[in-house]
Amino acid sequence: MAGGPLEGVRVVDLTTVVVGPICTRTLADQGAEVIKVEAPDGDILRTLAAGSRTPSMSGKFINFNRNKRAITLDIKQPAGLEALRRLIAGADVFVSNVRPAGLKRAGLDPASLVPLNPRLIHCGIVAFGEGGRYAGRPAYDPVIQSLSGVAGTFERATGEPRFVPMVMTDHITGLVAAQAIGFALYRREKTGVGEAIEVPMFEVAASFVTSEHLGAATFDPPEGPTGDARLLSPDYRPLPTKDGYITVQPNSNPQAFAFFDAIGRPELKEDPRFDTPIARTENAAEYFRVRVEGLAQRTTAEWLEIFAAADVPAARYNRIDDLLEDPHLRDVGFWQFDEHPTEGRIRRTRTPVTFGGGMRAEVLPAPRPGAHTDEILMEAGYSAEEIAAMRETGAAQ
Amino acid sequence: MAGGPLEGVRVVDLTTVVVGPICTRTLADQGAEVIKVEAPDGDILRTLAAGSRTPSMSGKFINFNRNKRAITLDIKQPAGLEALRRLIAGADVFVSNVRPAGLKRAGLDPASLVPLNPRLIHCGIVAFGEGGRYAGRPAYDPVIQSLSGVAGTFERATGEPRFVPMVMTDHITGLVAAQAIGFALYRREKTGVGEAIEVPMFEVAASFVTSEHLGAATFDPPEGPTGDARLLSPDYRPLPTKDGYITVQPNSNPQAFAFFDAIGRPELKEDPRFDTPIARTENAAEYFRVRVEGLAQRTTAEWLEIFAAADVPAARYNRIDDLLEDPHLRDVGFWQFDEHPTEGRIRRTRTPVTFGGGMRAEVLPAPRPGAHTDEILMEAGYSAEEIAAMRETGAAQ
Repeated sequence: MAGGPLEGVRVVDLTTVVVGPICTRTLADQGAEVIKVEAPDGDILRTLAAGSRTPSMSGKFINFNRNKRAITLDIKQPAGLEALRRLIAGADVFVSNVRPAGLKRAGLDPASLVPLNPRLIHCGIVAFGEGGRYAGRPAYDPVIQSLSGVAGTFERATGEPRFVPMVMTDHITGLVAAQAIGFALYRREKTGVGEAIEVPMFEVAASFVTSEHLGAATFDPPEGPTGDARLLSPDYRPLPTKDGYITVQPNSNPQAFAFFDAIGRPELKEDPRFDTPIARTENAAEYFRVRVEGLAQRTTAEWLEIFAAADVPAARYNRIDDLLEDPHLRDVGFWQFDEHPTEGRIRRTRTPVTFGGGMRAEVLPAPRPGAHTDEILMEAGYSAEEIAAMRETGAAQ
Repeated sequence: MAGGPLEGVRVVDLTTVVVGPICTRTLADQGAEVIKVEAPDGDILRTLAAGSRTPSMSGKFINFNRNKRAITLDIKQPAGLEALRRLIAGADVFVSNVRPAGLKRAGLDPASLVPLNPRLIHCGIVAFGEGGRYAGRPAYDPVIQSLSGVAGTFERATGEPRFVPMVMTDHITGLVAAQAIGFALYRREKTGVGEAIEVPMFEVAASFVTSEHLGAATFDPPEGPTGDARLLSPDYRPLPTKDGYITVQPNSNPQAFAFFDAIGRPELKEDPRFDTPIARTENAAEYFRVRVEGLAQRTTAEWLEIFAAADVPAARYNRIDDLLEDPHLRDVGFWQFDEHPTEGRIRRTRTPVTFGGGMRAEVLPAPRPGAHTDEILMEAGYSAEEIAAMRETGAAQ
């Protein structure tokens, strides 16, 4: 059974795609019992992402939905909605990424659920916070990357706005939602009552970007332009070597001076542009050029050996496929292989964080649609006859 | 006083730069009492980042260190180390981003601290997890972006490896560390004992990237290439309009069909390349080309009005500076202005997540070096004479 820090926490999960599923996967990985509630057409991530062995079980869906059980309910039917409410009545946490107006119409908003379960932690993941003019608008990750300045950081660096090629703001918001739920669970141990949490993607992403790039505009009036110039250089990237790429980041003086020696430029140790961390920050673009020129002289393997000996932070460049073979990841058992009951042998990541007080032991395979509908309804007190009646109408599937 | 979910939680924070400070800022923003312990030369972020009104108070430092108090201790001196141990004895949480060997030398590793404080939650943020061959190596964010595949996602999209122009893996790992601490605080309410948590940047970032991009290689043997093609298109970016940029993300059929009508291509609704979500995923590159061509016809303002009326997810493109004036962020009070006691008027973000059960009320200004040294030592039971003696030797500053 589960043995993680959230052992015994029961989560009802009415979320889809990435922002909600990464939140509830995080809770599940750390021991919570997560019930994924899906509409009859299922989480769109089941089919939206390419790569699957059977319909509705894409690789990406599997990655974001391990350790969960699944029930399919048609909550547009009263019996389906009533079943969901019964699940919520017995839960510690209810997470949704449904727009607030839709939640309210279904009677699933915080105020409507307090009488049903006063200890409930109600976590609403939304695109835009209530009280702002964008509240209630639809959004996906690129919309938020566009609005929150993520794409803008690339224009500052390269001249072209661009998204991070991941659903970064979905993913981060989901991690923050799991964080907030943990904090609320802690508080509930003290107070005995639940609460409602709002986690808005736009505000989370804007906070992320501006914490890093408000810079001199932290002061009012500003002391200079926004932006951390070290990160906004066009050369802020893995740099070419003779045979590939390398990343080297000599920040402190000992690191930088060892680096200057290594590239055969010892005179830079006394160059006022590069002789202190502040000077190197002020001359970030030139410091990058020094690196570009120096690194082209040797192969990646040669540099890695030199920098390891000199304690200069450096790393090779891993493509996505290289991660499957990375020696450190192999050492720590990052990749695990499971036999999925319907999808065959699959590869999964282990939880990156380790808890000395105990980790979830049992791994549940990502569920097929409605895989646990009967089991979950029976646990909620439904009789076999009642379940059959709900299946008849499609309220449960 | 504080009123957030972590009210009453005492955190001793031996971290620098971003990965640790964003973890402890998150805890502080949610009500924890955070004591930032600095070495005599101070957190390098005080000076490394450009933009400040007085030395050692960069804008970036201020952003990551609000709501904390600061004490300067020279823990290379026995009296300084003893003071840190006394603070830890009275704390709920100890967070560091010191390499494990250094922690152990100082007697600050989990095993050494259990006798001092069996209820302590010991959170070690490291570059690489113990047990792997990179453990103990130095690393900064770009090193981790290079190794973890973040940079690799850009090569897949554009042909050139590139970093996200933020310290993204630092920042995410710090948020995950705060999340893990919340989970451990919850568990401690049940068990009464503390535990040690390891949060490794490389593993956290590799999990982030591969959850999204393992794709068809989730299956063993792989069913196809790694990578989510929708995100890896060269056109996955804000797209040019007549007068600027716009982002539009029509995922569902109603959204996509409304979009095709809007750009004057109604025939695409029946085109087998674009008539279902799966078809649009399989033809992601072409679907982007349709958008590129269609969007060039009108101005951003014209498109935004059309897409709002059609309920198609769309957004304008905000540069970093545009966030300072964004109307939604203004509506929700995202930007707050404080009078900093030494730095004057400053701008800060409010916590993006809202907790219905109560939020931290009192905002503490980011501290100058050693701003609370005496106060914190007195709270820990030091007499004025003892403090004076420590100041004499520089053990406290």
